[in-house]
Amino acid sequence: MPHISLPEGIPGISSGFAFRPETARPMRELAHVLLHEPSTLSPAERELIATYVSSQNDCFFCQTSHGAAAAAHLGEKAGTVEEVKHDFMQAGISDKLKALLVIAGQVQQGGKHVSSESVQKARELGATDLEIHDAVLIAAAFCMYNRYVDGLATWQPRDPAMYAAMGEHLAAHGYVTPPIKSQESSK
Amino acid sequence: MPHISLPEGIPGISSGFAFRPETARPMRELAHVLLHEPSTLSPAERELIATYVSSQNDCFFCQTSHGAAAAAHLGEKAGTVEEVKHDFMQAGISDKLKALLVIAGQVQQGGKHVSSESVQKARELGATDLEIHDAVLIAAAFCMYNRYVDGLATWQPRDPAMYAAMGEHLAAHGYVTPPIKSQESSK
Repeated sequence: MPHISLPEGIPGISSGFAFRPETARPMRELAHVLLHEPSTLSPAERELIATYVSSQNDCFFCQTSHGAAAAAHLGEKAGTVEEVKHDFMQAGISDKLKALLVIAGQVQQGGKHVSSESVQKARELGATDLEIHDAVLIAAAFCMYNRYVDGLATWQPRDPAMYAAMGEHLAAHGYVTPPIKSQESSK
Repeated sequence: MPHISLPEGIPGISSGFAFRPETARPMRELAHVLLHEPSTLSPAERELIATYVSSQNDCFFCQTSHGAAAAAHLGEKAGTVEEVKHDFMQAGISDKLKALLVIAGQVQQGGKHVSSESVQKARELGATDLEIHDAVLIAAAFCMYNRYVDGLATWQPRDPAMYAAMGEHLAAHGYVTPPIKSQESSK
């Protein structure tokens, strides 16, 4: 049960967003810029960073919804997503993305954990300053989103079909338009 | 030295904001709503939560700038701020704020660390659902801001007068208008 009286029938972060629209607006906008707007990192790559950090933070809702968004972008079920969560150095992704995931994992532990060596390695593998910046900020932002979702003890249903639909919606439309309708109002 | 080529002469988070204005906008807006807009928690109380979480994350820039903002709101040098950072249960603050700081400290460790008992305690001491929500989100948001500031290895000057001026400015104007000018352009 959530720690506060969140609107019922709305999963995960969307219940916090419905409870407090004033903070929802910039939180949605930030996710939209970082994950959905044009970038030299593909949306799938950015969703994989978000998914990895959320899995390191053990946030079921975020790792499942963003994993579904990554899978939708990739046009696959969940192969790459599961690989990245379990051992990204062995996953079928670029070496540059692996280097950015190393940085993201350091950010998840704490900002001071990011090493010059890991940044240098990413740069050698072709990462630009903007890509390194965005990897740092995606990881930092998910340390916020994950804590918000679990810190309020939001309702996080376990239905895979719901997350698959959410992933398709997020991949197509991004984060600015409220992506999740109440289970009541969508009947 | 910063991990990427951030604009020079701009301290802390402001250098990241100058590097990437598209993400700066929602990050500034979120801080403004959480810390500066009207709320049943005073701006000083909310800045103290931000300062405490930033000190737990060992982020010099954020704990010093938000500590200065809290001190400016309180009209004092730094007494309460130092008390809160070092042992908030003994600080000269309300029992309700102490209970919210307990929750904020749990969020800093991870969302799942927030206990029903700590939320119940805050409620017994008069905290509303909105106040508990905002304490959770301020703590979560500073887990992002702190990681962003340190994860980029931003320049964090040690000049107390600079932070005192910043605190006065933030207390008066909030976070939406860029508060920090380049040291070059302000000469």
